[in-house]
Amino acid sequence: MKPVNVGLCGLGTVGSGTFNVMKRNLDEISRRAGRPVRITHIGARRDHPDCDTTGITVSRDIFAVTKDPEVDIVVELIGGYDVAQELVLAAIENGKHVVTANKALIAVHGNELFKKAEEKGVSIAYEASVAGGIPIIKALREGLVGNRIQWLAGIINGTGNFILTEMRDKGRDFADVLKEAQELGYAEADPTFDVEGIDAAHKLTILASIAFGIPLQFDKTYTEGISNITQADVNFAEELGYRIKHLGISRKTEQGVELRVHPTLVPEKRLLANVNGVLNAVLVEGDAVGPTMYTGPGAGSEPTASAVIADIVDVARGVEGESNVPHLGFSDHTTDLNVIDIDEIETCYYLRINVEDKIGVMAKVAQIMSAKDINIEAIIQKEPEDGETTVPLILLTQQVKERDMNSAIATLEALAEITTPITRIRMEPLDG
Amino acid sequence: MKPVNVGLCGLGTVGSGTFNVMKRNLDEISRRAGRPVRITHIGARRDHPDCDTTGITVSRDIFAVTKDPEVDIVVELIGGYDVAQELVLAAIENGKHVVTANKALIAVHGNELFKKAEEKGVSIAYEASVAGGIPIIKALREGLVGNRIQWLAGIINGTGNFILTEMRDKGRDFADVLKEAQELGYAEADPTFDVEGIDAAHKLTILASIAFGIPLQFDKTYTEGISNITQADVNFAEELGYRIKHLGISRKTEQGVELRVHPTLVPEKRLLANVNGVLNAVLVEGDAVGPTMYTGPGAGSEPTASAVIADIVDVARGVEGESNVPHLGFSDHTTDLNVIDIDEIETCYYLRINVEDKIGVMAKVAQIMSAKDINIEAIIQKEPEDGETTVPLILLTQQVKERDMNSAIATLEALAEITTPITRIRMEPLDG
Repeated sequence: MKPVNVGLCGLGTVGSGTFNVMKRNLDEISRRAGRPVRITHIGARRDHPDCDTTGITVSRDIFAVTKDPEVDIVVELIGGYDVAQELVLAAIENGKHVVTANKALIAVHGNELFKKAEEKGVSIAYEASVAGGIPIIKALREGLVGNRIQWLAGIINGTGNFILTEMRDKGRDFADVLKEAQELGYAEADPTFDVEGIDAAHKLTILASIAFGIPLQFDKTYTEGISNITQADVNFAEELGYRIKHLGISRKTEQGVELRVHPTLVPEKRLLANVNGVLNAVLVEGDAVGPTMYTGPGAGSEPTASAVIADIVDVARGVEGESNVPHLGFSDHTTDLNVIDIDEIETCYYLRINVEDKIGVMAKVAQIMSAKDINIEAIIQKEPEDGETTVPLILLTQQVKERDMNSAIATLEALAEITTPITRIRMEPLDG
Repeated sequence: MKPVNVGLCGLGTVGSGTFNVMKRNLDEISRRAGRPVRITHIGARRDHPDCDTTGITVSRDIFAVTKDPEVDIVVELIGGYDVAQELVLAAIENGKHVVTANKALIAVHGNELFKKAEEKGVSIAYEASVAGGIPIIKALREGLVGNRIQWLAGIINGTGNFILTEMRDKGRDFADVLKEAQELGYAEADPTFDVEGIDAAHKLTILASIAFGIPLQFDKTYTEGISNITQADVNFAEELGYRIKHLGISRKTEQGVELRVHPTLVPEKRLLANVNGVLNAVLVEGDAVGPTMYTGPGAGSEPTASAVIADIVDVARGVEGESNVPHLGFSDHTTDLNVIDIDEIETCYYLRINVEDKIGVMAKVAQIMSAKDINIEAIIQKEPEDGETTVPLILLTQQVKERDMNSAIATLEALAEITTPITRIRMEPLDG
């Protein structure tokens, strides 16, 4: 059968991994695709020391790849928004299928890009954009197609999970672990995208659209990072039988769809709570199948390449026709379900309140909670440390609306006996 | 677009689940498939109390479904070998695509069935045959297509995992838990297929063929059940930091492919070791992606229906053309790699040896192991229980060939101080 020609744009971490894995596994990949699959054109501003590109056209102008009449599939691995968007649009305009690992691009510009691609009868495949090498897009868009998805929850940023794992396992501080993650190359020099949850919000936006058949709505995703999590919180959570994970959560309710990224207490007996280090995992609850979970490396050169190549082969296997799987899983991805405001969301909460070590404080706190109709599930109150005049009071609450919790916290913080801001972490049972 | 008409053969546990989920989620499924997907003909010897089939043709002769000119896809959910095989052949002969949940049929007759289907230009989809609702066939055959798979290890029989979990968590005996599993409907009245590993061997045969591009070779799969595992073994494993899991393992080595199902000690820190109860999980090591794991319900009415419907939609999405994904993942599934005899396989071992409580016995055991070049990693030897004249001696060995271990065990069992058969359980680090 006719070979499939791949044009690779970008020869950085993921690009070089894709190049090398395709070369190394050329035989198996072609046998699986049922035809030769080969890189014929590379667009990259500079060579990569690990890639021997002898015999392959290399252009310093990446747009040359989109104009190459021999190229069937343009693989966009340059990252970022603007140039990547231009590149993908140029490829579509020239009738090329596109494979991309760019979560920011898909989360922010996906709706328009998919529309353009459909008009032109080409596909944009983006498995590598969420959870690296884990085939989660395929699982949601094809494997679980018989289900009404009820919710999903994912550890979808490896750097954040590495930091939280180290804080728990080794009692280290956030800042200290973050520094190591940067040195190890997990976190970017500017780690905001990772630790403030923006990267996870990009990925959650994509997962939720596929799960629920809604347009991509990154701007409506509630995003909270992990930089305020302290060693004390990790330890108290542990004592109560929980682990703190930075989760992206999306749930369909009668009011609409929840889209939220925040630190979360998860019962330690859940498998998801035991996914550690840089691993990612996505737990999906379907009405027929129940819970299924997908775990693996969420980033890195060859794990991401694995997903890029799966997309290339998917396109190659159906390259001559139109894609049979709709971009966002639904043929009419227009169900515009309301995205629920964070104020309206109901969860359980962990609260850490520094209170003055005086008689009657606990009674005041309990009275305020009771007046706000918030039920308390568990309490820890310890003796003050030597020389301290305040003690941490830990409360776990039953389910309550975020707005009501905010109001209770404001009332608590107005007490004379509470002199520092209250730490509030949401809790999820993740039990269906 | 033209509706896709499904003929459902079998209205038992999985058949009724498929019927009900398709009815309940009709709207979402059709939106995802891009066309109406509906059951138009049911072949079943009797009605199912939970299924209202008003308005649908019902035939008591299931073969009538394969002859219905309106039917595009025949779904085989009757189970067993002979009639199922005839039914699938009849459907293929009549140019129908087939969806089946029948692992025994695929593992034993898949090679011929796929050949017939390819000749006729139709597909046989069988996601539901392995690990119930977990889309593991899709992950291996499409999601990990860029990888050379190195090995896979799976908990692929829920009944067996339930029994081992209960033995560990509650200190119960094998026979006692098996009885409960039968009462709960997890295990069949004749539980041989579950506890002796035959069901797992069917599934492993299928997974290995897709992973390595080899023909289905159920008859070459080494199969050992869990009925000899005792509470003592579970406890000693725990003490040494391991869990006992009934695994299907397939690995590609320079000598060929390993295909084996047996109880296995797995380090407790591995996520797979913490997959409990009736859940299934498959851990796959790819050369590019590293380890990815897929977890979920491995059996049951609606979980299995979830996989059946995913297959129906897969066929529906490409129903007018030929299937683009080869049945066993490779377009030329003929790489006839040698299946390695169990005698030639190298693993680590756990040995439980009842020895007489005399001075010098440990030295004799150590000398025999040393003479056979078997290195010992860990030892537990306890005081004898009151009134007992023998004590259990537990050894963990380094990697050694099965044949050499058999020879060492024979020599040990010939010692006068060892009067009962030695328990031997293989160990796998599962670390890549």
